Amino acid sequence: MKILLLNPNTTEAVTDLLAAAAAPGLSPGTELVKSTAPRGVPYIANRAEALIGGAIALETLAAVQHEYDAAIIAAFADPGLGAARELFPLPIVGLAEAGMLAASMLGRSFSIVTFTDALQPWYRECVEWTGMAARCASIRTLGEPFQAIGNVQHEKEEKLVALAQAAVREDGADVIITAGAPLAGLAARIRDRIDVPVVECVVAAVRMAEMLVTMNPRKPTAGTYRRPPGKPSIGLDPALAAWIAGDS
Amino acid sequence: MKILLLNPNTTEAVTDLLAAAAAPGLSPGTELVKSTAPRGVPYIANRAEALIGGAIALETLAAVQHEYDAAIIAAFADPGLGAARELFPLPIVGLAEAGMLAASMLGRSFSIVTFTDALQPWYRECVEWTGMAARCASIRTLGEPFQAIGNVQHEKEEKLVALAQAAVREDGADVIITAGAPLAGLAARIRDRIDVPVVECVVAAVRMAEMLVTMNPRKPTAGTYRRPPGKPSIGLDPALAAWIAGDS
Amino acid sequence: MKILLLNPNTTEAVTDLLAAAAAPGLSPGTELVKSTAPRGVPYIANRAEALIGGAIALETLAAVQHEYDAAIIAAFADPGLGAARELFPLPIVGLAEAGMLAASMLGRSFSIVTFTDALQPWYRECVEWTGMAARCASIRTLGEPFQAIGNVQHEKEEKLVALAQAAVREDGADVIITAGAPLAGLAARIRDRIDVPVVECVVAAVRMAEMLVTMNPRKPTAGTYRRPPGKPSIGLDPALAAWIAGDS
Amino acid sequence: MKILLLNPNTTEAVTDLLAAAAAPGLSPGTELVKSTAPRGVPYIANRAEALIGGAIALETLAAVQHEYDAAIIAAFADPGLGAARELFPLPIVGLAEAGMLAASMLGRSFSIVTFTDALQPWYRECVEWTGMAARCASIRTLGEPFQAIGNVQHEKEEKLVALAQAAVREDGADVIITAGAPLAGLAARIRDRIDVPVVECVVAAVRMAEMLVTMNPRKPTAGTYRRPPGKPSIGLDPALAAWIAGDS
Amino acid sequence: MKILLLNPNTTEAVTDLLAAAAAPGLSPGTELVKSTAPRGVPYIANRAEALIGGAIALETLAAVQHEYDAAIIAAFADPGLGAARELFPLPIVGLAEAGMLAASMLGRSFSIVTFTDALQPWYRECVEWTGMAARCASIRTLGEPFQAIGNVQHEKEEKLVALAQAAVREDGADVIITAGAPLAGLAARIRDRIDVPVVECVVAAVRMAEMLVTMNPRKPTAGTYRRPPGKPSIGLDPALAAWIAGDS
Amino acid sequence: MKILLLNPNTTEAVTDLLAAAAAPGLSPGTELVKSTAPRGVPYIANRAEALIGGAIALETLAAVQHEYDAAIIAAFADPGLGAARELFPLPIVGLAEAGMLAASMLGRSFSIVTFTDALQPWYRECVEWTGMAARCASIRTLGEPFQAIGNVQHEKEEKLVALAQAAVREDGADVIITAGAPLAGLAARIRDRIDVPVVECVVAAVRMAEMLVTMNPRKPTAGTYRRPPGKPSIGLDPALAAWIAGDS
Repeated sequence: MKILLLNPNTTEAVTDLLAAAAAPGLSPGTELVKSTAPRGVPYIANRAEALIGGAIALETLAAVQHEYDAAIIAAFADPGLGAARELFPLPIVGLAEAGMLAASMLGRSFSIVTFTDALQPWYRECVEWTGMAARCASIRTLGEPFQAIGNVQHEKEEKLVALAQAAVREDGADVIITAGAPLAGLAARIRDRIDVPVVECVVAAVRMAEMLVTMNPRKPTAGTYRRPPGKPSIGLDPALAAWIAGDS
Repeated sequence: MKILLLNPNTTEAVTDLLAAAAAPGLSPGTELVKSTAPRGVPYIANRAEALIGGAIALETLAAVQHEYDAAIIAAFADPGLGAARELFPLPIVGLAEAGMLAASMLGRSFSIVTFTDALQPWYRECVEWTGMAARCASIRTLGEPFQAIGNVQHEKEEKLVALAQAAVREDGADVIITAGAPLAGLAARIRDRIDVPVVECVVAAVRMAEMLVTMNPRKPTAGTYRRPPGKPSIGLDPALAAWIAGDS
Repeated sequence: MKILLLNPNTTEAVTDLLAAAAAPGLSPGTELVKSTAPRGVPYIANRAEALIGGAIALETLAAVQHEYDAAIIAAFADPGLGAARELFPLPIVGLAEAGMLAASMLGRSFSIVTFTDALQPWYRECVEWTGMAARCASIRTLGEPFQAIGNVQHEKEEKLVALAQAAVREDGADVIITAGAPLAGLAARIRDRIDVPVVECVVAAVRMAEMLVTMNPRKPTAGTYRRPPGKPSIGLDPALAAWIAGDS
Repeated sequence: MKILLLNPNTTEAVTDLLAAAAAPGLSPGTELVKSTAPRGVPYIANRAEALIGGAIALETLAAVQHEYDAAIIAAFADPGLGAARELFPLPIVGLAEAGMLAASMLGRSFSIVTFTDALQPWYRECVEWTGMAARCASIRTLGEPFQAIGNVQHEKEEKLVALAQAAVREDGADVIITAGAPLAGLAARIRDRIDVPVVECVVAAVRMAEMLVTMNPRKPTAGTYRRPPGKPSIGLDPALAAWIAGDS
Repeated sequence: MKILLLNPNTTEAVTDLLAAAAAPGLSPGTELVKSTAPRGVPYIANRAEALIGGAIALETLAAVQHEYDAAIIAAFADPGLGAARELFPLPIVGLAEAGMLAASMLGRSFSIVTFTDALQPWYRECVEWTGMAARCASIRTLGEPFQAIGNVQHEKEEKLVALAQAAVREDGADVIITAGAPLAGLAARIRDRIDVPVVECVVAAVRMAEMLVTMNPRKPTAGTYRRPPGKPSIGLDPALAAWIAGDS
Repeated sequence: MKILLLNPNTTEAVTDLLAAAAAPGLSPGTELVKSTAPRGVPYIANRAEALIGGAIALETLAAVQHEYDAAIIAAFADPGLGAARELFPLPIVGLAEAGMLAASMLGRSFSIVTFTDALQPWYRECVEWTGMAARCASIRTLGEPFQAIGNVQHEKEEKLVALAQAAVREDGADVIITAGAPLAGLAARIRDRIDVPVVECVVAAVRMAEMLVTMNPRKPTAGTYRRPPGKPSIGLDPALAAWIAGDS
């Protein structure tokens, strides 16, 4: 089974973090292939960047999806997830959705813990889109600057642990989701310092992707994710334009 | 007062329909300036096209927003609306949101009536994002092909009237929203054949935009629509890249 | 266009405050006519007074509605709004509903800030009736006495600013609604001291009324606001009794 | 124990129907005293009439509540219920609320069955105010004229049975509530012809009133139903004005 | 009228507390018969114990329900309530549901106050099952050990009063529900020290049971609580097995 | 990895069906061990049987859970799932929850299709408990008798396909969940005759169990699934009693 790990950010160091955190979670026989966005922003952090990065993710998928059994959109609030599911025939998984669904089997509520305030509004919309708002006890963020996106999980480790414990004690979180691709790998490291389970989203995502491939779902011809009819376009990325035009 | 009518579709005939339907609704002193997307699809009809078209709308806004008091994203399910509000300091209005808010003052529930099945899933997500799901009695669509997007409102007029009346009688709609830019102008024409009020979204939108300009709201420095911090990017449209980088 | 500004309170000073705050928001050609309740309480502050004041508002509307294009029920929690919409053919707007709908285009959530604890339970029910509970971050009130209803906005200005900022920082409000007719005019004065937009309800209300008149909605013959069949009554205000009896 | 059966309609025949249906449900030692509205409409059927009738109910309560242990507002959608609870110290029960709460112990969902379409919008708002919308499978109404309000339950008995059975079979109702004071007494008569329990609201209401009296709840000095501070008024019914002024 | 007070706990002292608290609430002519679980745990405090205790409650009901007009499952979060309603023809009432429904007539929101943290997760699920989550301001618990379950209400009386007042002032509770059978009788004792009404669940429960018996509802043959078809079983309690097999 | 497939029904043929359907979905290295309830009913179909069967499932888990990495409660509405998660330290998965979570990645809504009306009320409660009600388009059941539980999926195959297609076309289902252990294996067989993906719950369940084991979550010491304190009991199954008493 071959799964695409599509990072819609332009920072390769983050893609590497994700792949490293995912590696111990892969089933025998699963190959995970890394991809970093060729254009966009270093780290998507809000609705506007998610819109831009989501559209760029569609370009990548249009170009390479034929080669994969499933794809993971590897940024926490899942930019372009619904659009990708609509367009393409292979199962598509998002880090945030996978993490929240996994969390919902480990507790009645979860808190999302991340490293910067800037992510809050976008994360909130993602939780609502995923239908998980009633399960979300809180989104807790650090309100202070950090030095480098690739090292933020180490620099802030103690503060993130404290934030997670505050979510457990004050917000009633039954599970902690460490959110944001730059925190990939943190969950395993802090596991024993948090009173409740900690979910590593990229492990959840690869396992969810494997599950969907195993279930062998058909591409729907009815309902919300049926493929739209072919349509001309102007000025779009060639591979994406061809797919929108109805190519197969 | 100068308002941008930003059609994120590439079809100028649809922009013209919208402008014509809006004209009788403008207050004295309001100037409405038309804009048609330079690239994208002829008519946005699903999540994937909305993602692409929304990102293109941000490019246009980055280039010209300094010249306007407010902007209208003139496609029914409001592609890029939240992202545009986050990025830019001027009030931004969407056709769908404006129409639904207006409808909520004319009844307890509304139905959305449009010309093609393809729009359903995307419209549904828009209703949910806008927080209006509890008010939405139904989304009714015609399940048959049409000849030309610029003339669909005339070709299907009788069928759309029947669909609206079915929404009133079978779904309990208190208000009808004729949705989709290609139907701009239809509401006034069928007003007397429907048992409940019919909302013309582009009129609602221009009036909402005027209201917001009159209220002179400040650009928030806190909360969901505060401007994100400046950030570098790779390979984006120059005006949008400059704005994301923090230019003013 | 002629709009009735119907204050269901008996305090003319409050009506004058409302009219003054509304004035800069009127479109060219709009005439706003003041009306103060001939009987009732000086300032409606709870469900019981709203029931009484709402019924009195219907009496006024029955007597004069023929002369207007639209009416505004000018007390924040909109006493009698649904009843008035049901009975009469002209568009009716409420301060609270107009303010909350305007706020919903400026943020994802709003807080309502007002000058006395007494208003909380009634405001809460209004928010729910309007379908805006999911958008309402909090209702913040001052828990201390004030000297005169006509001057409370000046007496408590600093405390109301602090309350609004607390709503932004602690409750996550994206927009502040200064609520209650006695605070009319405050929003503009404190605009620059609050981190998010501040909504002036009476400006929202006149602009919403103008919008609805412009849209020229028909009186529904089906649905929730269809006019009830004529019916006899005993001991009611003559104009209202006549209208309920089916006069036109 | 002495309970006031306050019919906010002006039709004594309906009060008598209610009292007769209630009689077999009274506990030993309970005295139920009838009261018919001295002014208002013969039968409240919509929001406007509920507003007017609710305010008149407050006048009656202000005059006589000292003599009772509890009061029942005896019209199905409970006009003035919240206002009465706020103002007065005795337990106040509504027909609709009592019926719906009773129904919620007999099934997971209920349908409301009544004799005229005109009642639908008002009933719907009552269900929402009571917080029972998720339990309400449907509101089913007869869409045809009837001869006399005092005899409608006999005239339409067969059709109401058919309507109730349709609610069970098509809407999934687990319980039927026969709604509207003019149907008082019908539930017992049709009990064996309906596949699920049928709730007689006035029996539920007297039993709920007895329960609340037995529980001896204090008048709250905090929260939603604390008594509002005394306040002057103009032109109101003398007993009500005195109570609003703070008399005890 | 003969009502079974079925305590699904094995502690007779708690059954006695419940019966004593219920006694002053009984109508003339009602006989309340005590029953204590023959096996299970001393005091049910979580989902697992509720599952076990609920199944044991079904055994008792299968053996004795023929002798009663109604039954009360006398543990706060109502173990086995839905299952018992489904299986048996007599009205079944739960302490928690009865208390919450009574509270909903005395305020818009309630808080549940109890003596140990351990009960929180299970109580939360009960509130949701009953459809009362929107009414529940908080579940407040004492986070400290106690000496004896039969005396906990006296030992912790002052702390429970403080907890209730905190719920009123900080959580906005309009009503307090003292929850858990070991607190039976506390409500009356602390009534005058709390700013809002305090609900005694077992009084609510006996009165609700009397009401349902008075209403004489039929056992449904359709809907959620219709009796399941007869079925064989292995290794179950004989009376329960016989009832499940379809005996009458 | 060793996973327990715990069928809480007493029918071994159903356990075999489940194991056969699960087999192609297992990852290399996963061992799935079958277990059939030693007492209870042949096929759990309602709340009462779920309560009984859930308590029996706890007995089995108490006896054997030490030997497994995870367990699956293999009856569609997941009897005892929350209780088992609370009591035991290993990940526990339910067929229904796993199927619904998988479905939520393949569409926005799903319909549950099963072979008998009797299951509806219980399934409905399961959907609500899992927090998936907003995603559930419908629960569709066959309203007719069948010959043998072990063969019902073959006997009714054509009718179940028609039911699934009706859910897609009339209820708007984006995904079909074939529900109930006796239908295990059906999904793969009918895959190409349904317009949308069909979820095989037992495959989802084993894959979810593998995922949770891979994530290595700690047993929480706080929150909803922390282990309850040890407690004595009377007359319970010895292994379960020992575990409840606090043994490890």
